[in-house]
Amino acid sequence: MKLTKNAAGRRVPDRVNGVAQVPYKGVGKFVPSGTKAAPAIRSAQDYPADGDKRVGSLKEALEKAGLADGMTISSHHHFRNGDMLMVPLFAAAAQLGVKNLRWFPSAAFPCHEPIIKHLESGVIAYIEGSLNGPLGRYASEGKMNGAAVLRSHGGRWQAVQDGEVHIDIAVIAAPTADPFGNATGDRGPSACGLLGFGLVDSLYADKSIVVTDNLVPFPCVPWQIMGQNIDHVVEVDQVGDPAKIVSGTTRLTRSPDRLYIAELTAKFVRAAGIMQDGFSFQAGAGGTALAFATYLREMMIAAGVKARFIRGGSTKYLVEMLEEGLTDYILDGQTFDLDGVRSMRENVNHIDTSPFTSYNWHGKGNFASMIDAVVLGATEVDVHFNANVVTHSDGAMLHGIGGWQNCLAAKCTILPIPAFRDRIPIIVDKVTTLCGPGELIDVVITERGIAINPLRLDLLAATKNSGLPIRKIEEMKAEIDALVGGPPRKPNFTDELVGIVKWVDGTVIDSVFRVEG
Amino acid sequence: MKLTKNAAGRRVPDRVNGVAQVPYKGVGKFVPSGTKAAPAIRSAQDYPADGDKRVGSLKEALEKAGLADGMTISSHHHFRNGDMLMVPLFAAAAQLGVKNLRWFPSAAFPCHEPIIKHLESGVIAYIEGSLNGPLGRYASEGKMNGAAVLRSHGGRWQAVQDGEVHIDIAVIAAPTADPFGNATGDRGPSACGLLGFGLVDSLYADKSIVVTDNLVPFPCVPWQIMGQNIDHVVEVDQVGDPAKIVSGTTRLTRSPDRLYIAELTAKFVRAAGIMQDGFSFQAGAGGTALAFATYLREMMIAAGVKARFIRGGSTKYLVEMLEEGLTDYILDGQTFDLDGVRSMRENVNHIDTSPFTSYNWHGKGNFASMIDAVVLGATEVDVHFNANVVTHSDGAMLHGIGGWQNCLAAKCTILPIPAFRDRIPIIVDKVTTLCGPGELIDVVITERGIAINPLRLDLLAATKNSGLPIRKIEEMKAEIDALVGGPPRKPNFTDELVGIVKWVDGTVIDSVFRVEG
Repeated sequence: MKLTKNAAGRRVPDRVNGVAQVPYKGVGKFVPSGTKAAPAIRSAQDYPADGDKRVGSLKEALEKAGLADGMTISSHHHFRNGDMLMVPLFAAAAQLGVKNLRWFPSAAFPCHEPIIKHLESGVIAYIEGSLNGPLGRYASEGKMNGAAVLRSHGGRWQAVQDGEVHIDIAVIAAPTADPFGNATGDRGPSACGLLGFGLVDSLYADKSIVVTDNLVPFPCVPWQIMGQNIDHVVEVDQVGDPAKIVSGTTRLTRSPDRLYIAELTAKFVRAAGIMQDGFSFQAGAGGTALAFATYLREMMIAAGVKARFIRGGSTKYLVEMLEEGLTDYILDGQTFDLDGVRSMRENVNHIDTSPFTSYNWHGKGNFASMIDAVVLGATEVDVHFNANVVTHSDGAMLHGIGGWQNCLAAKCTILPIPAFRDRIPIIVDKVTTLCGPGELIDVVITERGIAINPLRLDLLAATKNSGLPIRKIEEMKAEIDALVGGPPRKPNFTDELVGIVKWVDGTVIDSVFRVEG
Repeated sequence: MKLTKNAAGRRVPDRVNGVAQVPYKGVGKFVPSGTKAAPAIRSAQDYPADGDKRVGSLKEALEKAGLADGMTISSHHHFRNGDMLMVPLFAAAAQLGVKNLRWFPSAAFPCHEPIIKHLESGVIAYIEGSLNGPLGRYASEGKMNGAAVLRSHGGRWQAVQDGEVHIDIAVIAAPTADPFGNATGDRGPSACGLLGFGLVDSLYADKSIVVTDNLVPFPCVPWQIMGQNIDHVVEVDQVGDPAKIVSGTTRLTRSPDRLYIAELTAKFVRAAGIMQDGFSFQAGAGGTALAFATYLREMMIAAGVKARFIRGGSTKYLVEMLEEGLTDYILDGQTFDLDGVRSMRENVNHIDTSPFTSYNWHGKGNFASMIDAVVLGATEVDVHFNANVVTHSDGAMLHGIGGWQNCLAAKCTILPIPAFRDRIPIIVDKVTTLCGPGELIDVVITERGIAINPLRLDLLAATKNSGLPIRKIEEMKAEIDALVGGPPRKPNFTDELVGIVKWVDGTVIDSVFRVEG
C-alpha cells in the first residue's frame, strides 16, 4: 500500500483491502469508464414453478445459497439499532464453519456489538459499511483485520452498480413478504417503512435471501423488493424492533441554542428567496434539522407558500406538513418514526425512493441536485467550508456518512451546527477528516451567526439587507476559540490506516488513521 | 445461413440478421450461461444539475443521442394502433440522412404502415418485433431486408437483458412526464395505462428519450419510467390516441358459438376444482376471453368464491370484479380500455407489472407459472396440442406473440377457440408454425367439446363426472373436418426465410418461410 496526495491534499492509499483505489480528483472531475456490474443470467426453470421459495432456517438458506469462505454478505439498516437479524445470521454462519467473510451492511449500529466476536474469531474478516458506535470504535482502534471503507448511501449504490463491491449473498430483513420473495417494509408487525437500502443488493447479488416475520400469500404488495431477484425466503419470529428506528436524534431539540440556530436557518432560507411556491427542501432527522422544519412550516403558513416536495428521512413533522397541504409530496428515503411508516403506507403522495433515485452519482442524474435547500449536520467544518461527519476532533471514527455527501449536490447546502460541543469548537482550521469539499457547502449557521461561502455571491447579495447576523467564518471561529480557550487539541495520529472515506464517485477523498493512546 | 432441425423437429436457421441462433431444445432444457447486458456507467456530472433534460424536438433529441447508421431504435406499443410517435420519429431520422436502422418495437400496428417507405428507402433495414397487419404482410412477402424476429413480451425482456439485442436509442412515448424524464402512462390527456413494455428499454439502452404531451413539474408521480435512466425529454402535441388502445378484440363477443365456448370454459374451470377461494386466473382481451371472465364472475358470486389476483390486460370487466370485491388484486401488464387506465390510476389494488415481473424466463422465477388458469387464443392447434399464434393456415405472418408463450407456464392453460374460422378448421394435424409446445397446453375448448391433454391425468380425473362434453381431440378434429369438407389446404412454402419465432428462453422454436403466390 502506497499513500499519495489526492486533489484535496489528503493522503490516501492506492490499495485498500486488496482493491485498487482512485484518489479523489475534485468535484465532477473523475470520469468513469466501463460498464455496470453484470449479474449472472438465471432461468425460471431452476426456481419453484409455484413460486414457493421458502426454506426452513437462516442456516439452511445460507447453505443453499452456497455460503463459502471469503464471501461478501450484505444487509440493510432500515431497522437501525433495532435490527434483530444479523446477529443470528452470523451465528449461523459461524456454525457452518466459514471464515474470512466480508460483511457489507449499509450501516452497522450498537446492536451489532455481538458481531465483534466473529471479527475476533475470523468468521468475519472485516466490515465494509457505515460503522456507528462500538464497531466504529473497534475499527478506530485498529483491531479490525482490514480497513473500514466508508461510503455515502449513493456511494454504496455506485460501488455495487459499478462492480467495485460484488455481493455474494444479500440478506434482506422484510417486515412483510410472500413465499416468492416479494417484500415490503411499509406494513406488518415490524414495519420499518421502506427497504431502499437493500434494493441494490437484491439487484446485483449472486444470491438474495428475504427474511420475514410476516408472511402473506402471493402477492405481497407493494413489492419494494421484487421476488424475481430473490432466491430463498426464510420465516423468523422477529426481524427487527420498529420502536428502535426512532433513534435519539429524531426528537426535536430542546436546547435554546439549537432552537435559535434552527430558527436562524429557517429565516435564512426565507431571506435568501428560497422559500417560494413550488420549492423543495430536505432536512435530516437530527433535533436541529427537525426544529428547522417546524420553524419553516410556520413561515410557509404565514406566507401562504406550498412546497412541491420535501425529501425525508420522514418524521411526524414532515408527515404533518404533507397532511396539512404544505407540500405536494414527500420523497422518502428512510422512515425515522412510525408516523412516517404509516404515511408511507397510506398516503399515495408519500413516495418511496432509493439511493438510485435519490443519490447515485453514476446515473443519468439524481434527485439530490434538484433540491432547493438541504439542512445537514457535521462534526466539524473548517474555514474553507470543508466539513467532516465521520470522525470527531479527537480522530475517533464513530459515524457513518449516510446521505450527507450526496445531499451536498443541492442548490443550497446549509450546515446549522452548534459553535461547540463539550467545549470543543466545531469550526476549525482544517477538518480532521475531509468528507465534503467546501465548494459544495454554502452556509454554516451557529448560534454566533451565519457564514456564507464567499463563492456564493448570489446568497450574499440576497441576504445582505436581511437583518440576519451574516458574518465571516474566520471571525466566528476566532470568537468561539476565544470563548472555549483555543482550538481543539490535535490527535496523535499513527501511520496505521483504519479506514478510508469514499467520495460520491467512488474515489478516495480522505483516510482515517489510528490515533495513538 | 444453415437450417437444422430443432428438438421440436422444426427447421431453424443457425444465423438470423447476422446473429448466431440457438435451436430450441425442449421446455426447460436450454441452460443459459454468462451474464446480463451491462450498460455503460454514466455520471451525474454530464446531466443538468437542475434536472431539466428537455430538448426542442424529436430531431434534436436524436442528434444529441448520437443517431448514426446501423443503430437500433426501440419503442413500446402501449398505444397499440393509436401510436402517434414513431411515424414522425422515423421521418426525423430520414431527414437526418441515416440509413440501415433496426427498429425494435415491442409491437408494430397498422398505424405504422407509413414506415414501410423507410424500409424501401433503406432508412430502416428491418424491423425486429411483433408485426401486426400491413407490416406483417410486407415481411411475409419477403420484402423486408432482414428476417422478422418474433418474441413474446417476456422474450423481448430476456433478449435485451441477456444482451442478445442491444438498443442504441430507446424512444418512450409518455402520457405524463417531468423535465427530468420520470414518466407515467396512467394519467394525462393521452393516458394509456402503464409503460411496462418500455421499461427494459429504459434500463439497458445507451440513450433513452422520453416524449410527452403532458409535462408536469418534477416529480412526475408515479415514475413508471425513472428519470435516472433517461437522457433527453421532448414535448410534442400528442403522443398517442388513447381511444385506440381499445382494439376491436376488447369487446365481448356476441357470437352464440363463442359465448357457448366461453361458458364451457368457465364451467370447466369450476368443474376442475380450480375456482377456489384464493385462486388466480388470467384472460386476455379477445371477445371470448372476456366472455369467459363474465361467466366465471357469475359462478364466483354464486359460489361465494374470491380470487387472490387476476392478471390483466385489464378491461372494464376485470375492473368491475376488483371493485365488487371478487379479487384482492389485479396484476396488470397492459391496459386495454379506459376503465383499466382509471382503475390503475385510482385503485391501490390495481397493480402495475412489467414483462420482468410477469414473464421474463431468465429471472429467478416470474408470475406466469403461479397462475391457476390462463385462457388464451390461437390461430391453430394440432392433435398434439401444439399451437400457433403468429401465422394463419395460409402461412401468412400476421400476428405478434404478445404474452401468449409466457402464459403457457400457468398451472392450467386453456385455449377456447372456434372449431373453424371462414370455413377453415382450427384443429389441424400439424400447426403451420409452432409457437407453443403441446406439453404446456392443457385444454382445448371448441363449440364441439372439450379436449384435455392426455398428459393431464389430474384434469381428466377431476372432470370425469362433470357432465361436460369431454372428448378426444382427434375425434373433434375429424368431426370438424367432415363438416367443412376436409383439412385446410397446405400453403406452398418457398425456402426463403422471412421470420423466426423465439421461445421464451431465446432459442428458435420455428421459422416462417415465404409463401409462393
